[in-house]
Amino acid sequence: MSQPTLTNAELIEAWPLLSDEERTEGFSLLERSDAEDLFDQLDARQQSELLRAIPATARRGWMRYLDPDDAVDLIQEAADEERPALLDLLDPGTRREINALLAYAEDEAGGLMSPRYARLRPNMSTDEAIAYLRRQTRQTAESIYYAYVVDADQHLLGVVSLRELVTSPPQQAVREVMATDLITVGEDTDQEELSNLFAQHDLMAIPVMDEDGRMKGVVTVDDIVDVFREEATEDIHKIGGTEALDAPYLEVAFRELLTKRIGWLAGLLMLGVAAVLSLSYFEEQLQSATALALFVPLIIASGGNAGTQATTLVVRAMALEEVRLRDWSRVIRREITVGLVMGAILGTLGVGIVLGWHLVGTGLSGTPPFGDHYPQLAMTIGISIVTVALWGTIAGSMLPFGLRALNLDPASSSAPLVATIVDATGLVIYLMIALFILKGTML
Amino acid sequence: MSQPTLTNAELIEAWPLLSDEERTEGFSLLERSDAEDLFDQLDARQQSELLRAIPATARRGWMRYLDPDDAVDLIQEAADEERPALLDLLDPGTRREINALLAYAEDEAGGLMSPRYARLRPNMSTDEAIAYLRRQTRQTAESIYYAYVVDADQHLLGVVSLRELVTSPPQQAVREVMATDLITVGEDTDQEELSNLFAQHDLMAIPVMDEDGRMKGVVTVDDIVDVFREEATEDIHKIGGTEALDAPYLEVAFRELLTKRIGWLAGLLMLGVAAVLSLSYFEEQLQSATALALFVPLIIASGGNAGTQATTLVVRAMALEEVRLRDWSRVIRREITVGLVMGAILGTLGVGIVLGWHLVGTGLSGTPPFGDHYPQLAMTIGISIVTVALWGTIAGSMLPFGLRALNLDPASSSAPLVATIVDATGLVIYLMIALFILKGTML
Repeated sequence: MSQPTLTNAELIEAWPLLSDEERTEGFSLLERSDAEDLFDQLDARQQSELLRAIPATARRGWMRYLDPDDAVDLIQEAADEERPALLDLLDPGTRREINALLAYAEDEAGGLMSPRYARLRPNMSTDEAIAYLRRQTRQTAESIYYAYVVDADQHLLGVVSLRELVTSPPQQAVREVMATDLITVGEDTDQEELSNLFAQHDLMAIPVMDEDGRMKGVVTVDDIVDVFREEATEDIHKIGGTEALDAPYLEVAFRELLTKRIGWLAGLLMLGVAAVLSLSYFEEQLQSATALALFVPLIIASGGNAGTQATTLVVRAMALEEVRLRDWSRVIRREITVGLVMGAILGTLGVGIVLGWHLVGTGLSGTPPFGDHYPQLAMTIGISIVTVALWGTIAGSMLPFGLRALNLDPASSSAPLVATIVDATGLVIYLMIALFILKGTML
Repeated sequence: MSQPTLTNAELIEAWPLLSDEERTEGFSLLERSDAEDLFDQLDARQQSELLRAIPATARRGWMRYLDPDDAVDLIQEAADEERPALLDLLDPGTRREINALLAYAEDEAGGLMSPRYARLRPNMSTDEAIAYLRRQTRQTAESIYYAYVVDADQHLLGVVSLRELVTSPPQQAVREVMATDLITVGEDTDQEELSNLFAQHDLMAIPVMDEDGRMKGVVTVDDIVDVFREEATEDIHKIGGTEALDAPYLEVAFRELLTKRIGWLAGLLMLGVAAVLSLSYFEEQLQSATALALFVPLIIASGGNAGTQATTLVVRAMALEEVRLRDWSRVIRREITVGLVMGAILGTLGVGIVLGWHLVGTGLSGTPPFGDHYPQLAMTIGISIVTVALWGTIAGSMLPFGLRALNLDPASSSAPLVATIVDATGLVIYLMIALFILKGTML
């Protein structure tokens, strides 16, 4: 890292691999404009770590370089005891703004918004408005693409885009140009709901209002882009049976990587004892017909796989607000139909597997591998696969609704959880069917 | 649907539930401005369906209402035989633009870009530039937030934001205000790479260049928001073992829902026969020690769950470009360490389960459920869980790398696929360990 010829892009590329010292050194070797580019491209956590590493004298400049909403993100990433020192680096006005923003949770509209937005009065002409905006650049850092028309009490009357101002007749009143059918959110609107609003309405910015209808700030689509990725990443991690990681895979501390994974695995292992108990209840049958034991992995995999499909489809549809709690009956009707048809196809394959095995086994060894009652075994496997696949589909699709109804995160209905639940119950179904069909023949 | 009192929001809410006739009727009852709002909020597929349903006389107005990149999306959603008729509704200039755009794939930069962007010359003053932009509003519909400074051959020299134009001294040359360190993409840049660029650099728009460095159009962040959701949805569907659905869960046709799910399930069922074969190879041992059969679900679940975690973490990290192909050795080192520690914890739990079972079983029935050799059985289960969990972690984390190396989609390394692969191999590991430890005692 001592060669000063490293480009900005190379430095970013190598960033996760560098030690704190190498980062500090690399950063300090960059020209100011390159350093600003690099700083902009780091996320809040990385910015926070970098600030901790660079000399104290350089910290002030970088804290003041950030827009208020980005400074808030950075401070939220720092340890509690470091926050006052970081706040002290700011000028008093910004510090007040940021203290106000820090009161919001990171994942709600108040925590994502910038308090600096361009304000106009309804009676200004568009020419006056442009001249006015030119004078208040610092105040309007984030959001000059839209200017918000407010009355003296900060009640929002309308919005006008810079484009409309520039392309409207100079003497027209802002009131006549502004749009009034606005989508706004409250300070405590969750970031997932917010991101759905941006996506559904193709918006560039959404104003945030307090309870009394006064405008507090604005969330812009570039802030939401990160939310989209975060939300999807969290859901994917949960679907895979891991608690959501807070940092990129290669950067997350080993301890976090371990603790976020072992909890679910250990819990699922204990839950998995239910499957062993189910099997042990039928131990006698398994002893007299070992063939039944052989097909255990196939039966539980059918149920687990069907359940995993159903649960991931429903969890994703819920996250995108395509499916709501009240849609459960429409979902279950679809899933029962799909599950039945898929089960029938898989069950037929299962029958084919047993019959094929019988033919090949008999051909190779001269003795039928499952004895004389292979047609009954084939029927048992076939019917069990139909039933267990259907059951997996129903359980997998309904578990997210159950969690949502209990105000829990539907994404906790992970692939491993559904598979584990369906394992134990599926085995009971399988062996009951076996008892019924094979009683008097193999059993 | 005959009450004209239905609001715009209610109509959108009810949209998926309505028949084509109800949609047409509802839409026709709206005032023009409400109808425009509704039309804007529909996605390209829904717009295309609506256009098919409304009277032919109304179609022309709606096709011409759309920006070129949105019109392209709509036409791409229509059936091949309907496209010429839709193109004929456009004015000749727009039709030429759109025919050019239709040559690009939907999921690459050329297919997402708008060909209309604001062009400036480097020697204009900022005042001239603003006046010039005022005159060319139609040409600049999408992207007037940025104006692109090009030479006579359409080579891109720099970019200036409308904000910078408005806030710079009126007589300053555009050349002095523009930024020149630009991020651009080629026409065939994939949408996933494009969305990563937007996220990493917090951009509002990215210019698209042809091979000769001429600017062809611009992709804006609001177009990319949908891409983010689509890409994440596709990955989640694949992780769950389903081919990605093309439409929201409740709207997708039953036939598609079925065909996108049964293929993987049927394939996995056939692959699952490997686990049955593994077990049957050890049939003799299973017969003499039924307890071994009882723990089959627990052993394969440990491997499957650990593998599911590892594969989803790696698949997501690859999608976010946090992990690249060359990082495989760093990933495998992490996963071996995590897998060993998790395996040790789970293995200890496994030993506890067998010993606890022994104690409870003996207490309840008077006879030890696993006979006298329960310590050996506990050791077998413990060591098997350590080994199979470690193996699942390694297999799950490396499969996405294998797929990427073969230029396949890493997200195809789904939870069910990893679980099924680990099932068969894990059983062989389990029963080999059992043979080794229990030889001479239970076996």
